[in-house]
Amino acid sequence: MSHFTDRLIAAIRRCRNPVLVGLDPRADSLPLGLRCAPTDDGLEVAEAYRRFCCAVIDVVAPLVPIVKPQAAFFEELGPQGMLALAEVIGYARDQGLLVLLDGKRNDIGSTATAYAQGYLGKPPAGSWGADALTVSPYLGDDSLEPFVQVATQRGGGVFVLVKTSNPGGKLFQDLVADGRPLYQHVGALVESLATQTLGEGGYGAVGAVTGATYPQQLAELRSLMPHSWFLVPGYGAQGGTARDVAGAFDAHGLGAIVNSSRAIIFAHSRKEYRDRYGDARWQEAVEAATRDMIAQLASETPAGQLD
Amino acid sequence: MSHFTDRLIAAIRRCRNPVLVGLDPRADSLPLGLRCAPTDDGLEVAEAYRRFCCAVIDVVAPLVPIVKPQAAFFEELGPQGMLALAEVIGYARDQGLLVLLDGKRNDIGSTATAYAQGYLGKPPAGSWGADALTVSPYLGDDSLEPFVQVATQRGGGVFVLVKTSNPGGKLFQDLVADGRPLYQHVGALVESLATQTLGEGGYGAVGAVTGATYPQQLAELRSLMPHSWFLVPGYGAQGGTARDVAGAFDAHGLGAIVNSSRAIIFAHSRKEYRDRYGDARWQEAVEAATRDMIAQLASETPAGQLD
Repeated sequence: MSHFTDRLIAAIRRCRNPVLVGLDPRADSLPLGLRCAPTDDGLEVAEAYRRFCCAVIDVVAPLVPIVKPQAAFFEELGPQGMLALAEVIGYARDQGLLVLLDGKRNDIGSTATAYAQGYLGKPPAGSWGADALTVSPYLGDDSLEPFVQVATQRGGGVFVLVKTSNPGGKLFQDLVADGRPLYQHVGALVESLATQTLGEGGYGAVGAVTGATYPQQLAELRSLMPHSWFLVPGYGAQGGTARDVAGAFDAHGLGAIVNSSRAIIFAHSRKEYRDRYGDARWQEAVEAATRDMIAQLASETPAGQLD
Repeated sequence: MSHFTDRLIAAIRRCRNPVLVGLDPRADSLPLGLRCAPTDDGLEVAEAYRRFCCAVIDVVAPLVPIVKPQAAFFEELGPQGMLALAEVIGYARDQGLLVLLDGKRNDIGSTATAYAQGYLGKPPAGSWGADALTVSPYLGDDSLEPFVQVATQRGGGVFVLVKTSNPGGKLFQDLVADGRPLYQHVGALVESLATQTLGEGGYGAVGAVTGATYPQQLAELRSLMPHSWFLVPGYGAQGGTARDVAGAFDAHGLGAIVNSSRAIIFAHSRKEYRDRYGDARWQEAVEAATRDMIAQLASETPAGQLD
């Protein structure tokens, strides 16, 4: 399996955009035709999530390079949700999409290895079959090493939380130690791991999660971390704009994938699309919202250079 | 459902010890009679993990107050592993044990709520049925609030990583900002949340993970965080001794649970037990190792006051 970022770059160039569609199913937000009465074993809702996510994938697979299922919403349903998650990951891969699982996992030593081996890589190597996984850094460098090792073996990617998009992220991430904020300390480790795991395109197998809601820090981190691919959350529903994420890219329009979840998959609930498509034509709303986001990034960020 | 720490205190007083048995199944370490050839769908190994963990639970349920399944080893197997995890949690509860799931989860906003609602509380409220969950703090205070809220509603507990037992934990956790290390900043938030969620026994629903491998910091944190229950990993296989964890307790022998995983569940592989019991009588080795740990804590820590 070739290097994760080389596969990512090829997919981005083919699609001519860096959009990462987040698959965050929520029972109360599903189109009416997919809603169901919850059962104690989670089976009905899990089946609705599976059908919904696969229908979203049908729409976005020809348009974008990569999708990001959010593990939490599947885990919330218990084991039935996890069966649905595995099916959604498999279906996305079968449709030619790269899959980044948002699990924010981590642990120490052989426990971290278990997470990495379970999640990264096409089955049967990885049980879940994700191409990449989000990881939390609090446990330190030795907790990241097993992820880096498995990612290297299997052509997988690891995205470490560096500067997150939520308001409370700054409580610890912005604490200043030795003259720089914690998120820069974490960023320096990520960049070091990226430099050790470079693909042919100049980016490492280890990247960073850096929120769209802090555009200044995003640009600052881009220059501090030239070999680290950025996963940029916070676009759209959380308030980040195309202009806010511009600093995350390199001059070729590479180096970042920009996530939007609710604003795309639940576009049928947004006024601008609801009036045009209504609930019944929700997949057309997903397509329109995806195309609109692609256009916005192309016109206001270096991602326009991909054309 | 009454407050988590009140239920924990009752269970500790009943068992007269604060031992937390970690359920960390690993295919290569299972007793020979439970080993199996791995299949691509994880089914065989998952079934072996289920049988092994339930057999460990049969031994320890009369002896200790609480067990800690490690999510990673079940997740490694894919959805079949998650089905086994749910069965193990349910079986442990049915045998009267409290269950702390070690998942080190976290995310922001409604995603954190999904984790909290999924994992905390007896079914059907929580899909998995754990009494408590380990949580990572990097995302800040607003990421912890949903866990605190759900824990409060359901009598659950939350253990936030503060000072972890691995060597690399110090890389970020020991960075000094505003005159104190990061782990003390995190500890201060945990103590504040604990104070807001007190049970009748004087401890909050939010506690801290503080490793046995840093005995000095453990005692220091005990005095800084008088309302926070400590989950102390690193005992036994990671090198922490009974004397090292003594500082984690209050004067009544409460305030801490001490985890041992491999050293108990795979006691049949340790020389001192292997010679006595061999592989076939592995459950007797588990019992002996559990009783030995209980005795060590009773003789060298304030947990001896529980008698």
